[in-house]
Amino acid sequence: MKLGVCYYPEHWPKSRWRADAEHMRKIGIEYVRVGEFSWSTIEPTPGELHWQWLDESLDILHENGLKVILGTPTATPPKWLVDRYPGMLAKDEQGRVRGFGSRRHYTFASLEYREECRRITSLMAQRYGQHPAVASWQTDNEFGCHDTILSYAEADLAAFHIWLKDKYGTIEVLNQAWGNVFWSMEYRSFDEIELPNLTVTEANPSHRVDFQRCCSDQVVAYNKLQVDILREHSAGRDLVHNYMGFFTAFDHHKVGQDLDVASWDTYPLGFLDQEVIYSEEEKHTYLRVGHPDFGAFHHDLYRGCGKGRLWIMEQQPGPVNWAPHNPTPADGAVRLWTWEAFSHGAELVSYFRWRQAPFAQEQMHAGLLRPDAEEAEAAKEAAQVAQEVVKLSAALGMDADELLSLPSAGKVALMFDYDACWSLDIQPQSRAYRYLFWCYRMYEGLRELGLSVDIIPSNAPLDTYQMLVLPAQAHISDDLLARLEAFDGVLLAGPRTGSKTSNYQIPENLAPGPLAKLMPLQVERVDALPNHTQMAVSGAWGEGLLKHWHEQIATDLPCLLKDNSGNPVLVGQGQHYYLGSCLDNGALKASLAKLAEKAGLETYYLPKGVRIRERGELIFVMNYASQTIDFAPEGAELVIGSRRLETANIAIWKKC
Amino acid sequence: MKLGVCYYPEHWPKSRWRADAEHMRKIGIEYVRVGEFSWSTIEPTPGELHWQWLDESLDILHENGLKVILGTPTATPPKWLVDRYPGMLAKDEQGRVRGFGSRRHYTFASLEYREECRRITSLMAQRYGQHPAVASWQTDNEFGCHDTILSYAEADLAAFHIWLKDKYGTIEVLNQAWGNVFWSMEYRSFDEIELPNLTVTEANPSHRVDFQRCCSDQVVAYNKLQVDILREHSAGRDLVHNYMGFFTAFDHHKVGQDLDVASWDTYPLGFLDQEVIYSEEEKHTYLRVGHPDFGAFHHDLYRGCGKGRLWIMEQQPGPVNWAPHNPTPADGAVRLWTWEAFSHGAELVSYFRWRQAPFAQEQMHAGLLRPDAEEAEAAKEAAQVAQEVVKLSAALGMDADELLSLPSAGKVALMFDYDACWSLDIQPQSRAYRYLFWCYRMYEGLRELGLSVDIIPSNAPLDTYQMLVLPAQAHISDDLLARLEAFDGVLLAGPRTGSKTSNYQIPENLAPGPLAKLMPLQVERVDALPNHTQMAVSGAWGEGLLKHWHEQIATDLPCLLKDNSGNPVLVGQGQHYYLGSCLDNGALKASLAKLAEKAGLETYYLPKGVRIRERGELIFVMNYASQTIDFAPEGAELVIGSRRLETANIAIWKKC
Amino acid sequence: MKLGVCYYPEHWPKSRWRADAEHMRKIGIEYVRVGEFSWSTIEPTPGELHWQWLDESLDILHENGLKVILGTPTATPPKWLVDRYPGMLAKDEQGRVRGFGSRRHYTFASLEYREECRRITSLMAQRYGQHPAVASWQTDNEFGCHDTILSYAEADLAAFHIWLKDKYGTIEVLNQAWGNVFWSMEYRSFDEIELPNLTVTEANPSHRVDFQRCCSDQVVAYNKLQVDILREHSAGRDLVHNYMGFFTAFDHHKVGQDLDVASWDTYPLGFLDQEVIYSEEEKHTYLRVGHPDFGAFHHDLYRGCGKGRLWIMEQQPGPVNWAPHNPTPADGAVRLWTWEAFSHGAELVSYFRWRQAPFAQEQMHAGLLRPDAEEAEAAKEAAQVAQEVVKLSAALGMDADELLSLPSAGKVALMFDYDACWSLDIQPQSRAYRYLFWCYRMYEGLRELGLSVDIIPSNAPLDTYQMLVLPAQAHISDDLLARLEAFDGVLLAGPRTGSKTSNYQIPENLAPGPLAKLMPLQVERVDALPNHTQMAVSGAWGEGLLKHWHEQIATDLPCLLKDNSGNPVLVGQGQHYYLGSCLDNGALKASLAKLAEKAGLETYYLPKGVRIRERGELIFVMNYASQTIDFAPEGAELVIGSRRLETANIAIWKKC
Repeated sequence: MKLGVCYYPEHWPKSRWRADAEHMRKIGIEYVRVGEFSWSTIEPTPGELHWQWLDESLDILHENGLKVILGTPTATPPKWLVDRYPGMLAKDEQGRVRGFGSRRHYTFASLEYREECRRITSLMAQRYGQHPAVASWQTDNEFGCHDTILSYAEADLAAFHIWLKDKYGTIEVLNQAWGNVFWSMEYRSFDEIELPNLTVTEANPSHRVDFQRCCSDQVVAYNKLQVDILREHSAGRDLVHNYMGFFTAFDHHKVGQDLDVASWDTYPLGFLDQEVIYSEEEKHTYLRVGHPDFGAFHHDLYRGCGKGRLWIMEQQPGPVNWAPHNPTPADGAVRLWTWEAFSHGAELVSYFRWRQAPFAQEQMHAGLLRPDAEEAEAAKEAAQVAQEVVKLSAALGMDADELLSLPSAGKVALMFDYDACWSLDIQPQSRAYRYLFWCYRMYEGLRELGLSVDIIPSNAPLDTYQMLVLPAQAHISDDLLARLEAFDGVLLAGPRTGSKTSNYQIPENLAPGPLAKLMPLQVERVDALPNHTQMAVSGAWGEGLLKHWHEQIATDLPCLLKDNSGNPVLVGQGQHYYLGSCLDNGALKASLAKLAEKAGLETYYLPKGVRIRERGELIFVMNYASQTIDFAPEGAELVIGSRRLETANIAIWKKC
Repeated sequence: MKLGVCYYPEHWPKSRWRADAEHMRKIGIEYVRVGEFSWSTIEPTPGELHWQWLDESLDILHENGLKVILGTPTATPPKWLVDRYPGMLAKDEQGRVRGFGSRRHYTFASLEYREECRRITSLMAQRYGQHPAVASWQTDNEFGCHDTILSYAEADLAAFHIWLKDKYGTIEVLNQAWGNVFWSMEYRSFDEIELPNLTVTEANPSHRVDFQRCCSDQVVAYNKLQVDILREHSAGRDLVHNYMGFFTAFDHHKVGQDLDVASWDTYPLGFLDQEVIYSEEEKHTYLRVGHPDFGAFHHDLYRGCGKGRLWIMEQQPGPVNWAPHNPTPADGAVRLWTWEAFSHGAELVSYFRWRQAPFAQEQMHAGLLRPDAEEAEAAKEAAQVAQEVVKLSAALGMDADELLSLPSAGKVALMFDYDACWSLDIQPQSRAYRYLFWCYRMYEGLRELGLSVDIIPSNAPLDTYQMLVLPAQAHISDDLLARLEAFDGVLLAGPRTGSKTSNYQIPENLAPGPLAKLMPLQVERVDALPNHTQMAVSGAWGEGLLKHWHEQIATDLPCLLKDNSGNPVLVGQGQHYYLGSCLDNGALKASLAKLAEKAGLETYYLPKGVRIRERGELIFVMNYASQTIDFAPEGAELVIGSRRLETANIAIWKKC
Repeated sequence: MKLGVCYYPEHWPKSRWRADAEHMRKIGIEYVRVGEFSWSTIEPTPGELHWQWLDESLDILHENGLKVILGTPTATPPKWLVDRYPGMLAKDEQGRVRGFGSRRHYTFASLEYREECRRITSLMAQRYGQHPAVASWQTDNEFGCHDTILSYAEADLAAFHIWLKDKYGTIEVLNQAWGNVFWSMEYRSFDEIELPNLTVTEANPSHRVDFQRCCSDQVVAYNKLQVDILREHSAGRDLVHNYMGFFTAFDHHKVGQDLDVASWDTYPLGFLDQEVIYSEEEKHTYLRVGHPDFGAFHHDLYRGCGKGRLWIMEQQPGPVNWAPHNPTPADGAVRLWTWEAFSHGAELVSYFRWRQAPFAQEQMHAGLLRPDAEEAEAAKEAAQVAQEVVKLSAALGMDADELLSLPSAGKVALMFDYDACWSLDIQPQSRAYRYLFWCYRMYEGLRELGLSVDIIPSNAPLDTYQMLVLPAQAHISDDLLARLEAFDGVLLAGPRTGSKTSNYQIPENLAPGPLAKLMPLQVERVDALPNHTQMAVSGAWGEGLLKHWHEQIATDLPCLLKDNSGNPVLVGQGQHYYLGSCLDNGALKASLAKLAEKAGLETYYLPKGVRIRERGELIFVMNYASQTIDFAPEGAELVIGSRRLETANIAIWKKC
């Protein structure tokens, strides 16, 4: 595993640069991300390019043996550019222009802005494409951050018209597909269609889903434009984008197809505090370590987006500034997070940022160095990891590259599908239901059983897995159905699976639609429950509670869990199982354990807050609990750490 | 009682229509509402009228003996119309245009849109006014749904100027009436007046109340325009509009004056989950049956709007899609709701909708049929009611029409006044106070005593009642005062009664203003309490708590309840009583029982969650409780059901 | 102490005016505020001045021996003026024009509106500057009420450009100061800068702080314009403005520099209910008396703004209309509040308002008289105070003027700085932190120890104090540092002190920046905690909890309180102490007591809810508790009241 850091030479006097580079090396840093917010430094006034500072800083990094991930600066167009092309600005759902003064002030659909992106990316790629320091390029920065995928400006409407024409061909087909006869919403031409905001009550969900898809495709095209230029001028370098946590507004799998590696920016404490998925109890318990599945879930998700290759582009190194509250990490947490990323397949963990800036929006965001250039806590933990990597290599008798190539795939797959996410969240039927949250809780259940999981797109090959979970695959395409039929392992489909056709309609045979071929059953109606009402479930496979979503199922399949009126909740036999309700952690875990057993997978009994992950012959044991734990995987010997692990500590074992 | 259903032939292939009609008949449906969202099917492009589909579907319904309630399609103007008259769109309080893409995208004040309504209504009325299937017309659909009464567009301002000139004559009179000398708000001409939105702090409440009245009058005029056309071309047919639950933004009594029947759309579960009036405990307890007084309150309210005639135009048949959470009804609940409507005087209960649509906004809204055309639960319960109606007719020796003409009026009247509602809610003085909620809780108290109630407008005759409750009649007009003086029964006036003059000012003699003639007392000041502070009350008439609103009363009248400092809370003697505070359920019920006793009315002791309602010689016993109850009204014999009633069950008794 | 009242002769028939004046005198009123909302009465149409009504009413007041505080009417420009200068209207943060229809519909930055203010103020000053009744002038009314300091209109942008040029000179200096290199926010000219609203994510905090300073300076200039005119035409009269509670959006100290007296409008119950600073328990406990430190805090704060001179311009006399809930005060509370103001140095307490208006926005706002002109409760309490003032004068052998000149300064100073408030709240780092709230809780701790406190600006002389508290002085200027070095008493600096440079950057030596000269320590990082997590503190100086903000401190200073990991929380020795965390009431009070002891100050043990205040030789004992208390200060004799005090009662003692 390599360590990296995000660095902004433009923020500091030149006289500092060499010392910074030397200090990075000393800690064990090998990669440095540079440049992604520097457009106004590169081009302070239109057409006047200032490359010298970047030339010099890349040279200094190179001289110190550091490799550079160079960012295109398109997330922060300068003021003069915005003034020249005011139509490039996004509008929010309320119709307000989202102006200059922070970052991401553009809509992906703006053709004028894309042209400017092409220009600056070409200039950079031509200049640095063959620079010996440049090992990789990052396109833009955090697509969608600050809720910037959906925009309601003129450029977006124009793009939507084109997208719809392309998809439907004629307006009659669209009217039919959307069911526009309902409420007299029929259009006579594509040009009559508006964006689905500021309607009197909710717009047609088909309208909204298509707009979401269109906006997602704008991101894909926007990214592709830069990718093509970079491939032309900087062939052989890894192209990467840095995704975010709990973010589903565009299809990361599609963007990932055009890139070489997926990376993401992980802030375990900021997200714990910010996200509504976590209960108050979880927020309190994991205040200084983050939720035990936060990092893991995204590592497994984005490794799937990166065709197996994963980097962490920004790793939280201390308190951040942007969450509602910003506590300090527990001692050791930065090291824990770093090793955990490796256990899930990361090749690189890069800390954000090198040195805390004393000015502007993020002046309260910690770095490896403090504003006064002294080392902060995280610098010590990063250095420790760097030393431990050496120790681990030695213990395994591998060099660094061999270590990186340890296999990281799991034997259980959980299918995550952005289109399903939009489809279900746009009509959630209950405020208590969200696709992402349900996927996360299913993933949590698997992880608490000690299973190593891949999170896969709906078009992924299935043949390497012994068990497959479809948390809520709204639409089952013909292709997917064929692959599910061919799938050799144990399949579990969760509530809402197969509940929509490709046109966002209810299937003629009702849910689970085509999946009924594998699982003969019909969802007769849905009971969408408020938080105050949960129902008991019990049966051969355990007991517990159901909540939020409860389907009334008609089937002759064996019933493994029932609600307290005797209605089926979990049904199935052989390889195929259907779960019609959202279960609480206890019942869910019990059922997943039964399925894993049927799939021939070994599960663990882990103390609360403890997780394990296998990678190759290694077993990583991670303690997120507040208590010290004592845990040793059977048939394994210790390589790093100890059986007894305090909070935020990690041990690495090797299978004997 | 007749059963009906809402049907959208335009959503289904023609080949289905005949089977649908036959299936309706089989279940026992006699009325079918058709057409109210079909403008784009009728007139897909300006002036090109497509009647054939509607001709055919009416014919098929007619051939199957079904009667049609034909809706004017004006709640959903097509896109081309909106593009032609963009000024017809409403603006919300924030000044944003409320655009096309769902429904109700118009402001009532738009003269251009009214002209289009006149055109389409005339065309429909001319074509179908004498069609043998057409028994009734529904104007538009759910006036005000999605908060569409108040609009802040140019058309609304123009209408407001006219309305104000008409009311006040000169600007000096308006300035005086509104008290515009306060804060230098005086105007020199009507044209200087703006709408009362987007002011720096709250606008003058007189300004707001008058704007609300003006907007309400726009609805009246808008409805009247259609009524006049329909009466011309389709004389003898019942004209009806479908009102909504807990909706007070326009004066339903005024709209009702122009119609023949009042109907409303009842969704007991959706409203339970959605409305802040209900406590979390109520939401949990009544999750699958709705609150015991929800249906009843509106039945009695709208029967008063319909001059004694009541239909249910849309009855919830299963889970809906639009509440925050959408649970399934208890088994039997649809039947319970249907019978309850009858017990309160309904002539017709029509289910929404026939068959669940597989597309667009309401694809998760249940119908009598599922999307696959199989019967959903509700179809069975509707069929059961249809059979029980026959049984009941037989038991009473009446035919269907005689059954419908059973008297439904109560002996207790509760006055509900939209103008009072606006007056008090625009200056609530406490976030904990809302006029509607207080009326509802008084009604609940009466119902828990087993009393059959009429909810009446302020201009209703009073002579048939033994007891009259004025929950909070803000302004006591001369006419009302005269009728109150002449009233022969027991009168209870609640807090805030008589607190405003006709010009929204405090009466010179303070509250209760002119009512002091009947009840010599003066409200010296008001204690408006947060939820965290309630006060004990006790006295000759019981004990309990007061909350939200507590008036300091000066009077020599006998004091029947006092607060814990000895201040009067409930005072009065003989026929006239004044309650100065909002009471909790216990104290309120005890006081209402005393008043009923004085009025010579018999009250019941009912188990929690149980309600009864008398209609003619019949006594309906309804169980909303979670437990099975055992209840038999004295001196009555069972006609339908049994003494023991499970949750959501009903029994019908006949007085011996 | 003098009593006054706010009076609106324009609201009442002329025939009432004489009776009103006589009634005021009878109660003991000596001052009457008049005119501040009367522009439309004075000038109903442009240029047509109607002075007669004001001439007459001033004459009647004068004839009855009443002194007038005359208000300029600029808080309520008439409609015709707004129509003439639509650019004078403010825009809110969302970009919406804040229109006519209530009050304060202008932005301070509008040059057109300032010109109109100059015109009307000149006309009034010329006419009444030498009127014998006019003792004082109030400029405008409640600057900033209804959130009107920050405005985002064109006039504001123009003012901001001028202000920035004036401050920074060149755009390069601004770019450097703001750190605009971060996120490519660099500008090429001042004209490129926009207002910091409607950005995609948060704007640069330097941008926001400077905009806040600019807006504050607009208020200063706006006020100064009126002051200059009034000084010219009405020399010798006290110029005053009426500030508000818990309001920090402009620099009151700067405005106060141009005036003779500071006054404020005190509504203890309205603010208790409205403000998030108070817990639900406090809201319940103090429902009818207000929080024990609400009045006191503002009295001490504004006395500091008024260079030692303090008036209460509006004293709550009964229930108000504008809080979420509006309870009645406890019997005696109005008297308590009045005397408390005197104990903190008030020369005048003026009630708002004379007679409750029966119309417009505030018709539910109590006055000394009810709408029917009868006395409300407060009139009796005011009259009682008037008599007690006479009794007190007699007991002390002083005349009224001597009484007013009793010294009111404390021996403890708490520094309150508007610029620090903006600096810290614009980047709070935790939703649980607010500068004002922390200052208030520190003040509360001091008051619970019986200490008499001055709240002082950062440029105040320090030499009269034995103890000085800097709750969170974000920036320590060279001048302040010099005065702190010279300060002879005990100094306590709280968390975040010295954490920002003058350019809103982190100091090179980290916090507490220059203060490290006096207190050698360094804030290494910050732990910003959510409400659900508090940490124990303990040490030589007591024990309790820390919450919200917890700094990691490196120092060799003695550690007086530590957190439960042994990290320093409160450090210091000799005269200088640093507190790195927000403490709960118990720990805070214990530490303050230790510091007071070191400063040689005597502290009291007071029952909960009881406060004392010394003024000259007098000791005021005030009971805000719900229980009757028994308390006698040692070595003092009773002048007014008794040892035993019921809720809302007060006693005045004289030191022997």
